[in-house]
Amino acid sequence: MASLNAVFAGDLVVGESYPIGSYLISREAILEFAGEWDPQPIHMDDEIAARGFYDGIIASGLHTLCIFQKLAVTHVYRDWEIIAGRGIRDLQFLRPVRPEMTLTGTVTITAIEPRDESRSLVHKFGELFNDAGELVFTMRAEAYMRVRIDPTG
Amino acid sequence: MASLNAVFAGDLVVGESYPIGSYLISREAILEFAGEWDPQPIHMDDEIAARGFYDGIIASGLHTLCIFQKLAVTHVYRDWEIIAGRGIRDLQFLRPVRPEMTLTGTVTITAIEPRDESRSLVHKFGELFNDAGELVFTMRAEAYMRVRIDPTG
Repeated sequence: MASLNAVFAGDLVVGESYPIGSYLISREAILEFAGEWDPQPIHMDDEIAARGFYDGIIASGLHTLCIFQKLAVTHVYRDWEIIAGRGIRDLQFLRPVRPEMTLTGTVTITAIEPRDESRSLVHKFGELFNDAGELVFTMRAEAYMRVRIDPTG
Repeated sequence: MASLNAVFAGDLVVGESYPIGSYLISREAILEFAGEWDPQPIHMDDEIAARGFYDGIIASGLHTLCIFQKLAVTHVYRDWEIIAGRGIRDLQFLRPVRPEMTLTGTVTITAIEPRDESRSLVHKFGELFNDAGELVFTMRAEAYMRVRIDPTG
């Protein structure tokens, strides 16, 4: 059974934006994530990163994406009747994410496509900003969500 | 200094495919990743997952993407002179990734765009297959790579 607060596809409104809270990304977290999933020198070695186009290590783009998802799930999707994600598109890493930055963001509903009696495909746009309010990351994603079934219908 | 095996943008060939090895995804790993980054019931709760369109928990799509990246970095990008990723596009989660599956995959060079004297933008297509050889995941990504500087030039 869905919870009393359950949000179905038909409860969402195109154009609505939801704040997803904030996340402090520590140097240790950048090193740990990169060591596990994306062990490239620019995410792990200050000296090599400084030889390149950056001032020191920068977070893996996958780490940035994971932070977006963690914030969106815990602050917004928590009560949504999501069946499963279908795809993610257009991830853009616009500015480097560095140790000790605090990221904030929003998720916005961009379209709702009814698919059948039980499912709609919900399109979302996500963004993250750095401490200076500059955009560091954007993405688009689609997920299947349940449609509310009218028990009297 | 670049290593003796360093691979620059100009060393890559459009159309070339590289195997990225394989990865066994355990039930514990699915639960741990989801708990940290994507705490949705379909990734964490067999009972709720079974009420939906699946037979039990399925891996987060972000987990699948992270596995692809880990394999690609450790098996292929290891010696590549990558400056930084610019974006990821068209992530498609085509079939569920379930506990105890072994994923295998390839990465293919689809385009190389010279940008300036020192950098090219390299376009890649990635895919992962399940134990039955069925495609479970595809993506496209672009990264800036160094161009080899001729010391005699």
